[in-house]
Amino acid sequence: PSFIEQSIAIIMEDVVKKATDVTEKVCEWRSPEQLKELLDLELTDGGESESKILQHCRDAIRYSIKTTHPRFFNQLYAGMEPYSMVASFITEALKPSLYTYEVAPVFTLIEDAVLRKMMEMIGWEEGGDGIFNAGGSMSNMYAVNLARYHHYPHIKELGLSAAPRLVIFTSRECHYSISKAAALLGVGTKNVYVVGKMISSALEEQIKTAKSEGAVPFMVNATAGTTVLGAFDPIEEIADICEKYNLWLHVDACWGGAALMSQKHKHLLKGIHRANSVAWNPHKMLMACLQCSAFLVRDKTHLLQRCHSAQASYLFQQDKFYDVSYDTGDKSVQCSRKPDAFKFWLMWKALGTRELEQRVDRALAMARYLAQEVEKREGFRLLMDPEYANVCFWYIPPSLRNLSDGPEFWKKLHTVAPVIKERMMKKGSMMVGYQPHGDKANFFRMIIISPQVSKQDMDFVLDEIHNLGKDL
Amino acid sequence: PSFIEQSIAIIMEDVVKKATDVTEKVCEWRSPEQLKELLDLELTDGGESESKILQHCRDAIRYSIKTTHPRFFNQLYAGMEPYSMVASFITEALKPSLYTYEVAPVFTLIEDAVLRKMMEMIGWEEGGDGIFNAGGSMSNMYAVNLARYHHYPHIKELGLSAAPRLVIFTSRECHYSISKAAALLGVGTKNVYVVGKMISSALEEQIKTAKSEGAVPFMVNATAGTTVLGAFDPIEEIADICEKYNLWLHVDACWGGAALMSQKHKHLLKGIHRANSVAWNPHKMLMACLQCSAFLVRDKTHLLQRCHSAQASYLFQQDKFYDVSYDTGDKSVQCSRKPDAFKFWLMWKALGTRELEQRVDRALAMARYLAQEVEKREGFRLLMDPEYANVCFWYIPPSLRNLSDGPEFWKKLHTVAPVIKERMMKKGSMMVGYQPHGDKANFFRMIIISPQVSKQDMDFVLDEIHNLGKDL
Repeated sequence: PSFIEQSIAIIMEDVVKKATDVTEKVCEWRSPEQLKELLDLELTDGGESESKILQHCRDAIRYSIKTTHPRFFNQLYAGMEPYSMVASFITEALKPSLYTYEVAPVFTLIEDAVLRKMMEMIGWEEGGDGIFNAGGSMSNMYAVNLARYHHYPHIKELGLSAAPRLVIFTSRECHYSISKAAALLGVGTKNVYVVGKMISSALEEQIKTAKSEGAVPFMVNATAGTTVLGAFDPIEEIADICEKYNLWLHVDACWGGAALMSQKHKHLLKGIHRANSVAWNPHKMLMACLQCSAFLVRDKTHLLQRCHSAQASYLFQQDKFYDVSYDTGDKSVQCSRKPDAFKFWLMWKALGTRELEQRVDRALAMARYLAQEVEKREGFRLLMDPEYANVCFWYIPPSLRNLSDGPEFWKKLHTVAPVIKERMMKKGSMMVGYQPHGDKANFFRMIIISPQVSKQDMDFVLDEIHNLGKDL
Repeated sequence: PSFIEQSIAIIMEDVVKKATDVTEKVCEWRSPEQLKELLDLELTDGGESESKILQHCRDAIRYSIKTTHPRFFNQLYAGMEPYSMVASFITEALKPSLYTYEVAPVFTLIEDAVLRKMMEMIGWEEGGDGIFNAGGSMSNMYAVNLARYHHYPHIKELGLSAAPRLVIFTSRECHYSISKAAALLGVGTKNVYVVGKMISSALEEQIKTAKSEGAVPFMVNATAGTTVLGAFDPIEEIADICEKYNLWLHVDACWGGAALMSQKHKHLLKGIHRANSVAWNPHKMLMACLQCSAFLVRDKTHLLQRCHSAQASYLFQQDKFYDVSYDTGDKSVQCSRKPDAFKFWLMWKALGTRELEQRVDRALAMARYLAQEVEKREGFRLLMDPEYANVCFWYIPPSLRNLSDGPEFWKKLHTVAPVIKERMMKKGSMMVGYQPHGDKANFFRMIIISPQVSKQDMDFVLDEIHNLGKDL
C-alpha cells in the first residue's frame, strides 16, 4: 500500500473507530515538557523515512484529545459526524478556495444553497446575504463592521479619527469576541456598553446614557445561547428598542442557532427574523466538522460586498465569460477561504431537517435529565435551570457539606473543580470544563451535543466527579 | 464496506489518483445555471440514502476544479502534497481547536516548533512570537493592529475617535488585503498612502507629506513577492527609513517567503530580519494544504497577546494544573482555530529543508525557462523578466501582429486573454489567470509551483494558448 493508503488505515483505526468507543480514553495526558520529549518536533535539513512519518502520525493521534469521544463535554462542539467528516476529506484533497466561481464552482453554489436554507429557518422570507467564515468571532466582527458601514459608509475610506465616538450595546454574558471586535475595529473596548441583564428598560437606559455623553449608539448585540450558561436574550424586546433608536440588531446565535431546527425549542429565538444580522455556527450543536460558521445579513442591497470590497483586478475581472455575481470573494475580509458550507450541506442532505431537529431535541432532553440528576444527588448543586444544552453545577465534597454558605465555603469550593479536572484529565475518563463566572466560584459546565451520548453517560459523569473529588 | 470506507475509496480514485494525471481534464466546466441543474442542491425535511450521498460526493468532485492537477497555474497555490494532505485528514478527523493546550496539546507544541523554525529562517536569532491563522489577509490585518497597538496601546480601549489620523505606507503593488485591513480596523482606505515604486526616497517623501498634513505615520508594509508580478520591495532600504522615523515594518512575504528556504534566492528578501512582523503562507509556494498561513512578530514582550487578549474566564482559567503560557488562544482574534501548522510540519519532517529548497529552486528555474520560451516565440511578449515564479506575458494573435504599437493595438489585445481563458476552461486543458494591471492591457500570469511540473508542461501552455487564440 502507498503512503497515503497506510496513513488512511491509521486514521480509520486510531481515530475513526477508536474515538467513538466509550471504553477508550478521552485523552492520554502529558504535560508540555513530557510531550515535547515524546514527540520529536525538530525540523532538520534532511527528510525522514515514510515509516518514521507514519509513526509521527500515530503519535500525533495518540496524544491528541479525542474531541469526538462520547465523554468529551469540554467545549461547544463534540461528537463524530461521518458525513461531515467525509465532506472535509473531499475538500482537503481538492483544495478549493472560495473567492471565484471559476476556481470553486460546486462549493460556491453549495454555500449559496446552505445560506438560503439557513435564512429560511431564521424567517427572512425575502432572503438576504451571507458568507461562511473562520469562526463565530469572525462573524461577530463582520456584524460590527457592517453595522458601522450601514450607518457611516464614509468610515471605510476616511477612518474613525474624524468620526464621533461609536457605542455598541451587549449583555454581560456575551461572547468575548464582541470585545475583541471592538478592539480590532478601532471602536474601543470601553465603547462596548454592558447591559447587566438584557431587558429593554436596562438597554434603553444605557442608550440614553451614551447619547447624553455625546456618543453615538449604532449596534446592539443580543446573544442566543451564551457560552457559559446557555442563556437567551429576549430578542423580540430588544428588536423593539433597536427599531425605536434605529440601531443595528445583531444576534450572536453561534451556539443557540441550532434551536431554530426544532419546533419545540425555536421559541428561544423568537423575534430573530427582525435581526439585521445573525451569526450561527453549524459546527457547534449541529456537529458539522470544525470550522463551519455562517454570518447572515438581512440586507438585500449588497451591503456585505460594498462594505468589504477592494476589487482586486487579478481575481475579480469584470470581463469574464460567466456571471461574475457568483464570485463571492469580495464579500469577505479573507482572500483564500475554505468551502466550509459543504461540511454542513452533505450531512444535512443525508440526515434531513427532521433528523437534525431530533438531535437537538434529544440533546436538550439529555441536558434536562442531567440537571434533574444533579438536583437529586447529595453534594451537587445546580447553578440554574438549563435553558439549553449547558448544565452548570457545583460538586461539594463531603468535607464541605457541613460548612455554612458563607465566604469561607465558597473560597474552599472554588478550589475543588480545578483538582477534579486535573484528575479526570490524568485518568483520561472524560473532559468537562469549569470556570468562575462573575461572582460565582468555579463550577462545572457540562455541554451535551452528540446523539452518541446516553443517560448512562450522564450518570457516569456525576459518579466520576464524585469519585474523583470525594476526598477533597 | 462502511459509508466512510466507500467515500474514502471515491476520494482515492477520483481525487488523489486522477487529479495529478496530466491526461485528465483540469476542469469540467459548467455555467452556474447548468451546474445548478446537475447538482441537486436542495435541503429538505427527509434524509437521503447513502448511495445518493455517495453520488453527491462523486458529483462534487467531478465538477470541481482540480487545483492539484499539473496544469493548474491559476492561483498562488497548486500541486499535490501527500504528506500535507494526510496531515489535513488527521486533523479533520480529530477536530482539535487551538485555543488551549488542554484541548490541543500536540498541535500547540507543533505550531510552536514550526513558528520557531520559520523565525530562524527569517533570521530572528532571538526568536519572537507568532500564530497561524486563516490566510494572509488575516496576517496583514494582525500586522496593522499590532503596529497600532505598539504605538498607541490605549486605542484598544478607547478606540480611534479621539486618536489622530493614522497613516500606513505601502507600494502600489501590494496585496489588496492591506486596504481591506485599513477599512476594517477603522484606519480608512484613504489613509493607506501608496508609494509608486517602493524606494526609500519616494517613501520618505510620502512620510513627510503625511506629517505635514498633521497625520501620524505608524507603519510601512513592504511586499516580498507581489501577487501579480512577483516583485520584491527592497526591504533593507525600507528598514532604514522605518528606523529613522520609528515606524513598524511589516513584510508581506505570503508569496515570496518561500525564497527564504533557498540559498540561491533568499537575497530577494535581504533585510527581512529587520522587520517587526512578517506574513508567510506555506500553503502557497511550499504546497502545504490550504490554509496554512503564519503571522510572525519579532517582539518578545507578549505584544501579540496583550494586543488581542480578552481573558475569557471559561477558556483561560489561571488556576489550571499546567503551565497556561501554552494556551495560545488569547493571541488570536479568532476563538476556535484550526491546527494548520501540522500540515506544514509533517511535510517538512518528510522532505527536510533541503528538499523544500530544491523545490523552490526548481520552480524558479522553470519560470525562467518559460520566460525564455516566451521571448523566443513569435506572437508572445514578456511583460517583465520574472523575479520569482510569476511569468507575465501577452499573446498576440496573428491578426494583430502587423498593427503598430498604439492605443488601437492595446485595445484589441485587451480582449484576447479573456477569450482564450474561456476556451481553455471549456476544453479543460489547463488553467492560467489573466488580468489588466495599472495601464497594462489584459495579460496572462503563469504561476509555477509544483515539482510535478515539467518543461513539457511549459511548452504545452504556450502551444495551447496559440492554438486557442490564433484565430482571434
